[in-house]
Amino acid sequence: MITLTTDFGIKGPYVGEMKGAILTINPEARIIDITHSITRHSILEGSFVMEQVVKYFPPNTIHIGVIDPGVGTERRAIIVEGDQFLVLPDNGLATLPLKWIKPKAAYEINLKKIEGIIGRPISSTFHGRDVFGPAGALLDLGYEPSRLGKEIDLERIVKLDIEPKKKDNFWILKVIYIDDFGNIILNLEDYGKPEYIKILGKEILYLETYGKVKPGELLALPGSHDYLEIAVNQGSAAELLELRVGDEVEVELVYKEG
Amino acid sequence: MITLTTDFGIKGPYVGEMKGAILTINPEARIIDITHSITRHSILEGSFVMEQVVKYFPPNTIHIGVIDPGVGTERRAIIVEGDQFLVLPDNGLATLPLKWIKPKAAYEINLKKIEGIIGRPISSTFHGRDVFGPAGALLDLGYEPSRLGKEIDLERIVKLDIEPKKKDNFWILKVIYIDDFGNIILNLEDYGKPEYIKILGKEILYLETYGKVKPGELLALPGSHDYLEIAVNQGSAAELLELRVGDEVEVELVYKEG
Amino acid sequence: MITLTTDFGIKGPYVGEMKGAILTINPEARIIDITHSITRHSILEGSFVMEQVVKYFPPNTIHIGVIDPGVGTERRAIIVEGDQFLVLPDNGLATLPLKWIKPKAAYEINLKKIEGIIGRPISSTFHGRDVFGPAGALLDLGYEPSRLGKEIDLERIVKLDIEPKKKDNFWILKVIYIDDFGNIILNLEDYGKPEYIKILGKEILYLETYGKVKPGELLALPGSHDYLEIAVNQGSAAELLELRVGDEVEVELVYKEG
Repeated sequence: MITLTTDFGIKGPYVGEMKGAILTINPEARIIDITHSITRHSILEGSFVMEQVVKYFPPNTIHIGVIDPGVGTERRAIIVEGDQFLVLPDNGLATLPLKWIKPKAAYEINLKKIEGIIGRPISSTFHGRDVFGPAGALLDLGYEPSRLGKEIDLERIVKLDIEPKKKDNFWILKVIYIDDFGNIILNLEDYGKPEYIKILGKEILYLETYGKVKPGELLALPGSHDYLEIAVNQGSAAELLELRVGDEVEVELVYKEG
Repeated sequence: MITLTTDFGIKGPYVGEMKGAILTINPEARIIDITHSITRHSILEGSFVMEQVVKYFPPNTIHIGVIDPGVGTERRAIIVEGDQFLVLPDNGLATLPLKWIKPKAAYEINLKKIEGIIGRPISSTFHGRDVFGPAGALLDLGYEPSRLGKEIDLERIVKLDIEPKKKDNFWILKVIYIDDFGNIILNLEDYGKPEYIKILGKEILYLETYGKVKPGELLALPGSHDYLEIAVNQGSAAELLELRVGDEVEVELVYKEG
Repeated sequence: MITLTTDFGIKGPYVGEMKGAILTINPEARIIDITHSITRHSILEGSFVMEQVVKYFPPNTIHIGVIDPGVGTERRAIIVEGDQFLVLPDNGLATLPLKWIKPKAAYEINLKKIEGIIGRPISSTFHGRDVFGPAGALLDLGYEPSRLGKEIDLERIVKLDIEPKKKDNFWILKVIYIDDFGNIILNLEDYGKPEYIKILGKEILYLETYGKVKPGELLALPGSHDYLEIAVNQGSAAELLELRVGDEVEVELVYKEG
C-alpha cells in the first residue's frame, strides 16, 4: 500500500505521471491519495499532514511525500524504514511522521541506481515521478531499501524547529496547521486539561466540542490531532485571529485550582 | 467496495486519516472517492450527491457519508441496510439515497462496540475516522450490521423536507443542488415534457441539450439526474438567476395543448 | 487499469456516477484518478494532460478522457487502440496522447450497442457516465473494440492545430498548458540547448532547474515534459507574462556559437 502526499495541485498531469511511474514498475500497487493540495512548498504543513496520516495506517504502509522546493539541488532523497516507510526529500518533511513509525534505519536514495532500474533518465525538476514514486513502488515490490541507496545516519535527517518554547507563565507556540475550516493547530501536546486559555488578548474556554459555544464564538479544544486547537463554531478561527501557518503566538493555559 | 462522500475538503489530513482507519481494519478494502468537497455542513447537497451516486453503484456497495455538523452531540450514527448500505449521521443525509437502496433495516451504531473493536477511544470531533469509517470497514469485512448496534425504526430516520409543493397553477420548488457549472437542479421529478417553463419572470424553453440554445442563453432540460434542471449554455444559471442551494422559487410548467 | 481525465470538477456527483457505471459493469476495475479539474471545455489542456500521463503508464492501460463541450451533438465517441487505449469524444482531445500509443486502429462507439449492454438509456448530456465509462469498463473486461462500434479511418480523427510555426529567425509558438505553479509550456520540442531565449521583449536564460535563478526571476528550461517551458523561481510566469492557454507568442532561441 502506497500513500501520496504532495503539493502538485489537482489540475495538472503531475499526479497522473507519478501514478503511472509507480504502476509501470508495480502494476499491482495500491495507491491511496492523501492530498495533492499541500500549500506549495510548505514543508511544515506537509509534515503535519503526513504525521496525522501515518498514525492511522497499518504497518508496512509506504508513505511518499513530495513537497520539494529544493528539487534539482543537493538536498538528499531518502527512505526512512520503521514499522512504516517514509520516502521523501530530506528537507524537514520527515520531522513529524518520524515520531510515529519507530524508525530503525535511513537510506539516501541513489539516483543512478533508480535510473538503472527504471531505464530512463531522471529529470532535474520532477523527482516525484522519477525518484520518489519509483523508489516507493520498488519498496512495495519487496526491494530492500539498501538496494536503493546507502544507509545514512538516522540522527542527521533534517528536522524542522517545532519544539514549543516556555517563557515565564506562557508558551510561545507555532501555528503548525490551519485546516480547511480555519481551525488553528498549535505545536503543544500533553498539556492536560485547562479551564481556559489566553491568546492575543482574548480569554477562550477550553471545551470538548465545537457545539458547546454559539456559532461565531471562539473555543480551544483537544481537537482530533492531540495538539492544542483553536476553533470558531461554524466559522474560521484563522480569519478571526489573523494567523497563518508558521506564525508564532503567545498562549497562556489556565487550569482549575485544586 | 466502500465509497466516501464528505465535506472534509481536499487539503488536510482528514481524508487520509479516515482511509487509514478503514485500511487498518480491512487492508483489502477498495475505497472509491466520490467527493470531499461538499459545501461544509450542507446536508442537502450531500444527500443529493449520495443519491446520484447510489443509483449507479452495484449491489452491496457501502456508501459512507460524513456531513456532520452535529458531531459530538446526541445525533445518532446509523447504518441503513438495503441492496446497498448507507453509513452516516442521522441528520437527514440519508433522505435522498434512501429512495434507491430498497431499505429493509436500520441500526444505531453503538460507539462503545466500535471502540472495543478498533481498540482506541472515539474522539468527539471526528466520527468519520473513528465511527463511520470503521463501521463501513467492518461491514465490508462481512460483519452483520446487528453486531455494530441495535436495530432502530426505519421510519424514524431523520428526513429533510424536500417534497415539491403545488400552489394554483405553479410549483414552489427548492434548489437542491447547483453543480460546478452553475446548473440548477430543482426538486421536481416525473413532470412529463413541458414546452417551456416560467421562472423569476422569464420564459425558458425546455430542450434536450445545452447546445440547442446560443452560448449565454437559459434553457430548462431533463438533465442527467431525473430532476428538472435549469442551465445556461456555456455559462452559469445560478449566477444569472442568483439562486443558491436551499432557495425556494416559483416555477410554472407550460405544456403543448392537445 | 482505467484512468480518468475530465472537466467534471471535484464537487459534484459526476465523477462518482461515472465510477459507479464503470464498477457496475466491471466490479474488479482498477480506477486511477488523473484529474477532474481540466478547465471546463478546454480540449487543448485536456489533450496535454492526457499526453503526459500516457507517456508514463504501462501497456494496455485504458485512458478515458471526457472534455466534451459537444455532448449531445453529432461529434463521434471513439476508441483508439494502440499499445494503450484512448476512449474519448472525437473533438481533438486525442491529438497529443495519440503520439505515444502507437495507434493501430480507431472505432466509432455505437451508442445503441452500449445501451444494449448496459441496459439503460443513454442521456444526451452525460456521456462520461453513459458511454465513455461503460466503453472503458468493457474494454477492461476484455471486449474487442470492434464489438463496441465500427472501425473508422485513423487519419480522420479530429486533430488540434498545434504545430509550431517558423517565421524568419523566430518561432510563433502556442501556450499549450499552464500548470498550477504558473509555469508556461509551449508547443516546441527537440530544439536542442539554447543559451537564452527572447520572448515579449525579454531575454531569459535557459537553465537546468528553477533554483538557478533568484526567487521571482524568469528562466526558460527543458521542464519535465520535453516541451519548452518558461518559469519564475517561486513565482508564476503566466502572471508575469500575462499569458493564457491558447495564446500565441513570438519566441527566438539563441544558441552558443561554435
